[in-house]
Amino acid sequence: MAQNLGTKKEVIPSLIRSIDANEVVGFDDNLTKQCVLHIEIKDSEENILEDEISNIISIKPSTEPPVSTPRSENVPVDRYFDALEGPELDILRPSEEIVLPEDKQWPFLLRFPISSFGICLGVSSQAMMWKNLALTESTHFLHVSLNVNLILWCISVLLFALVASTYLLKIIFYFEAVRREYYHPIRVNFFFAPWIALLFLASGVPPTVTTSLPHFLWYVLMTPIFILELKIYGQWMLGGQRRLSKVANPSNHLSVVGNFVGALLGASMGLKEGPIFFFAVGLAHYTVLFVTLHQRLPTNETLPKELHPVFFLFVAAPSVASMAWAKINGSFDYGSRIAYFIAMFLYFSLAVRVNFFRGFKFSLAWWAYTFPMTGAAIATIRYTSEVPNIVTKFLSVSLSTIATLTVFGLLVTTILHAFVLRDLFPTDIAIAISDRKPKTVRKWFHRRASSSEKDIEHYLKYVTSNEKEVEVSVTAKDVENQIPLP
Amino acid sequence: MAQNLGTKKEVIPSLIRSIDANEVVGFDDNLTKQCVLHIEIKDSEENILEDEISNIISIKPSTEPPVSTPRSENVPVDRYFDALEGPELDILRPSEEIVLPEDKQWPFLLRFPISSFGICLGVSSQAMMWKNLALTESTHFLHVSLNVNLILWCISVLLFALVASTYLLKIIFYFEAVRREYYHPIRVNFFFAPWIALLFLASGVPPTVTTSLPHFLWYVLMTPIFILELKIYGQWMLGGQRRLSKVANPSNHLSVVGNFVGALLGASMGLKEGPIFFFAVGLAHYTVLFVTLHQRLPTNETLPKELHPVFFLFVAAPSVASMAWAKINGSFDYGSRIAYFIAMFLYFSLAVRVNFFRGFKFSLAWWAYTFPMTGAAIATIRYTSEVPNIVTKFLSVSLSTIATLTVFGLLVTTILHAFVLRDLFPTDIAIAISDRKPKTVRKWFHRRASSSEKDIEHYLKYVTSNEKEVEVSVTAKDVENQIPLP
Amino acid sequence: MAQNLGTKKEVIPSLIRSIDANEVVGFDDNLTKQCVLHIEIKDSEENILEDEISNIISIKPSTEPPVSTPRSENVPVDRYFDALEGPELDILRPSEEIVLPEDKQWPFLLRFPISSFGICLGVSSQAMMWKNLALTESTHFLHVSLNVNLILWCISVLLFALVASTYLLKIIFYFEAVRREYYHPIRVNFFFAPWIALLFLASGVPPTVTTSLPHFLWYVLMTPIFILELKIYGQWMLGGQRRLSKVANPSNHLSVVGNFVGALLGASMGLKEGPIFFFAVGLAHYTVLFVTLHQRLPTNETLPKELHPVFFLFVAAPSVASMAWAKINGSFDYGSRIAYFIAMFLYFSLAVRVNFFRGFKFSLAWWAYTFPMTGAAIATIRYTSEVPNIVTKFLSVSLSTIATLTVFGLLVTTILHAFVLRDLFPTDIAIAISDRKPKTVRKWFHRRASSSEKDIEHYLKYVTSNEKEVEVSVTAKDVENQIPLP
Repeated sequence: MAQNLGTKKEVIPSLIRSIDANEVVGFDDNLTKQCVLHIEIKDSEENILEDEISNIISIKPSTEPPVSTPRSENVPVDRYFDALEGPELDILRPSEEIVLPEDKQWPFLLRFPISSFGICLGVSSQAMMWKNLALTESTHFLHVSLNVNLILWCISVLLFALVASTYLLKIIFYFEAVRREYYHPIRVNFFFAPWIALLFLASGVPPTVTTSLPHFLWYVLMTPIFILELKIYGQWMLGGQRRLSKVANPSNHLSVVGNFVGALLGASMGLKEGPIFFFAVGLAHYTVLFVTLHQRLPTNETLPKELHPVFFLFVAAPSVASMAWAKINGSFDYGSRIAYFIAMFLYFSLAVRVNFFRGFKFSLAWWAYTFPMTGAAIATIRYTSEVPNIVTKFLSVSLSTIATLTVFGLLVTTILHAFVLRDLFPTDIAIAISDRKPKTVRKWFHRRASSSEKDIEHYLKYVTSNEKEVEVSVTAKDVENQIPLP
Repeated sequence: MAQNLGTKKEVIPSLIRSIDANEVVGFDDNLTKQCVLHIEIKDSEENILEDEISNIISIKPSTEPPVSTPRSENVPVDRYFDALEGPELDILRPSEEIVLPEDKQWPFLLRFPISSFGICLGVSSQAMMWKNLALTESTHFLHVSLNVNLILWCISVLLFALVASTYLLKIIFYFEAVRREYYHPIRVNFFFAPWIALLFLASGVPPTVTTSLPHFLWYVLMTPIFILELKIYGQWMLGGQRRLSKVANPSNHLSVVGNFVGALLGASMGLKEGPIFFFAVGLAHYTVLFVTLHQRLPTNETLPKELHPVFFLFVAAPSVASMAWAKINGSFDYGSRIAYFIAMFLYFSLAVRVNFFRGFKFSLAWWAYTFPMTGAAIATIRYTSEVPNIVTKFLSVSLSTIATLTVFGLLVTTILHAFVLRDLFPTDIAIAISDRKPKTVRKWFHRRASSSEKDIEHYLKYVTSNEKEVEVSVTAKDVENQIPLP
Repeated sequence: MAQNLGTKKEVIPSLIRSIDANEVVGFDDNLTKQCVLHIEIKDSEENILEDEISNIISIKPSTEPPVSTPRSENVPVDRYFDALEGPELDILRPSEEIVLPEDKQWPFLLRFPISSFGICLGVSSQAMMWKNLALTESTHFLHVSLNVNLILWCISVLLFALVASTYLLKIIFYFEAVRREYYHPIRVNFFFAPWIALLFLASGVPPTVTTSLPHFLWYVLMTPIFILELKIYGQWMLGGQRRLSKVANPSNHLSVVGNFVGALLGASMGLKEGPIFFFAVGLAHYTVLFVTLHQRLPTNETLPKELHPVFFLFVAAPSVASMAWAKINGSFDYGSRIAYFIAMFLYFSLAVRVNFFRGFKFSLAWWAYTFPMTGAAIATIRYTSEVPNIVTKFLSVSLSTIATLTVFGLLVTTILHAFVLRDLFPTDIAIAISDRKPKTVRKWFHRRASSSEKDIEHYLKYVTSNEKEVEVSVTAKDVENQIPLP
């Protein structure tokens, strides 16, 4: 092994950047135990990762015969379900191992998840809400200044620039990590977040900045959403690993709500056919999602068993849809009201259970769950213009207050986590799962216990036989996956 | 044991009223066999129950060490599925035992199920239909007197008062029994019945009694429906034991139809936003229910395998929805027609199969299945006003006739069961299931057969070890429940 | 056995025509092996079949005790799922046997499937498209002659006459084969095809032939569709073997699209209520189907795992629905646009994946998958009239071109298969499956291997015991079917 460590320096730096997970994993399965013994921990983040990867890679030309490691292009979706748990599918199951060292701090970019765009969603929707509060006649009695909108909008733009440029760096330097986020069945929905945030920014643009946006902007913003939808909805329809009966989760709402936000912006700009197109696509797939999520199929493994902030995403689509339809149609008619009242019922249905939301581990993704509240508040302001009375005005004010307080509370929590607890960006387990089932842990310890001294010898044997076990278990796995196990 | 029987008289009477099922069951598991030997059968219904409970309770301070009996607040929903079968989930499976003596007649209130409100639904909807027949222009040619409406309405009011006050007594004296009905996955839907019946009474109020109902009445009637919906729909969405992929059953229509009946009454009263709210909530959840019931997921254990009168509930929601939308909208437009025609198709689809409805055991719940027919008849009368021709007039008359004949036939059957067969209120097994899995019957007999004489000794041993088995089987059960077994 | 063969000539010819599958199968299970030895192969197709059936039937009065063969009226649906595979459920699983000789050519009529009506769908929809291209103002710039419509329409009529009369012969001479197609879970949907093709013919009738069709024609054409729907949708709702969670497959779209084609024709004729009726029925069941197909429940065994031309059926319903609604409503309003845009999204979603459509075995059913393309093209022409600009005109022309080219390509392929490869009508395995599970093949060979010489003796024993095994396995099967295995 010593000579392998010697070759460490020869590893080309580009290898460090793109973590070729398959390569790593292939050997990880066999040799991790030995490797771990040789890792020299250094302080620099980069170095640790470099070491880990170098170690693993440098072993490559060893005398060890290269056991058959089937190279799969992507981590199969079942691996995510097998290896992870929790409503955001980001907690490693006890039986699993990860390909990166868990006890060391990873490079910042590797710990910067796509869900960070949730912050942009939360703040930019607030900017839009305050614009509505200031400009809508029904809330004139509040005398809200347009400056609140202006300030929030500027903050949103800055935040977006910051988050987007950071994530861009991640794309450049750790493309494999981004790819793994994209294949993560929950995370993939967050790839809609940047574009929805931009749509909110465009909708919430302060009148002092501009009052008319160019049409091409809408087309530019809707293109990535359209492409992502072709991909995601196609996966639902055409089945395979990512079929809806398997991946349905409230976070899928993010993949639908973009249609309605886009339709709203487009119709506000004066476009006609485009917004209806997205409204129609959204409506069809929202129906599918609404029914599927309400059914809670036993195969929907990622649906949170308990109440969780993610459920507030239920409110997003119908509340934005009601506004979009009102804009398309020119009036807040029965269609808009039906959508609005569905949103209100869902909101209320969650609000009465809000005291169940306890003991959840804070995560950046929570930011994404605040924009539906803001959306509901904006829809209520819109509805109040239509039906102005004391009840609706009270509702407008309270929903806006709740939304603002929630965002503020989350801001405080985020700052607390960022600067006091210093754990805002924890190790992102979700992208570091091995793409193969690890050895069954129990069996392993049992063997170790029984044959205490001949560890390595036994271990190698074990791996060799295990290698076959993996093959078999993969096949068995496929069969199991068809049976909707929890 | 003798001294235990002696303590029987000390049991406070309140204990008899509230059957603390958990307590009972805990001991039932261990000692039923012995208890049964000591029960002195008396003629009075009250006494039998008293005896049973007293016996079980009085054993409490015996020398028997109190085996660990996990106190669960409610009977878990899985127990209902495990212990009961049939489309109304009211037949005990052969392997199960109940906590009350099956061979004795229980107190009347314990045998008075929530489904008795079905009678009110059936009769009050008839009152409403005859009001429509008398007042709608398209059926003027029938020269129906408003007196029919008046008489039926008065009967309905009396019936409702009777049923409601009886059930109120049940709530007061046997709250635990009511709670068990509420947790019963099918029965819970019947908790909507009293309020829907009241809505029908309000809609069918004879013009001679009043022509304008106060608005607050609507709000009063819709409040319990709204609260129940928050509960029921929330259970669908938020999952857990009562998720829709598990409990979906045609009787769920009762939980949806209230929205449309409420919307219809509200819109008739001149309200605007409230009716649209309930219409929207109804529409969204009706879509979910319609799709789920049509899919017949393998996990929907309670969906009747064969044709059953309960299927007529399919007709209720769309026929009432068509009228509600017509009232909200001011005209019987395309939306109303679409709902109406869906109702007609479903009605016809069931009608052509009506000869399959044979050999089913009559139950009071059947009354609830007549109001959809009446609803379809009323919707047809409404549609006939819109499209008056010979076909629609014929349809109006025939559907009204069928509905009236069905109600009349059911009335005769009910009277027959009440006064001739004297089995209108049979033992309500559904509320008396034990909240734990009983010992596996086969195993039991096998053991008894092999060791014929040392019964009690073996039995006690068996129970002790079984106690652990229960724990294990509960865990195993949880896993099994995830796999949709039949 | 010899005397049995002697009785062969006594078999009445009518028996040959109606293959009483149950009779055949009952004996097939026991005696096939022996029978096969005695079959004298003759050249005439008829004779082979005659021989096969005669042989089997003539054995009837043999000394063999008639083992209990439960006579079931129809082949149960589970048999189709167990015995067949592939997206069209027409490939025999390796473990299965069929009741007709696989290695001989069957009579032509037995090889003529109901899916042949797909050709009529493909060509008659083309006739309708060219009528629209010629008559719609937005495509006047193409200067399409009405003669194209006339020629295509005449070809369609001829084709329909040809296919229909051939199939009529099959109904007369091989009613059992037709019945087996009707019970085939995929094929049954093709029973809608003749009526939809007639609706297309009526819609596409050249103005030179007639400009006004009599109303009764619509009623005549819609009656069989209505009856089939009562049957099919009733099976979905009322469950049993053919419940939607089991049979859902893109070919179900054929059972829904008839409603919209009928509504379109009816509304074009000036009818009002009838078209809305079918539109409503179609809408309700399309929603169910759309959601179910998108969910890809693990119990939907027949859903193609990979991309397959059948997916183009997704485009049919919404594109025809948009035109139907426009006709009913009098204008291409928001409702029509929503349906149209959903169709476009689905079309595009499939088009971008079109390069995955490779390596599939051509079948006549493919013709049925071309009419959705034509439907989408017609809807686009209609939409272009509403929104005439360069993009929509380009879209009209390209979609029409694609549809025509596809039909032309399929025509060439069909001719190639018909006259060059001579395999246009291959052995139709789907109708010839045995209605009982065959002996487990693996077990069989194992036994043979171990007891090499006493084959026949063992075989007969095996069959006798297997006879019981079948009974058991049928029961076990029922349980298995509840569990959604792949």
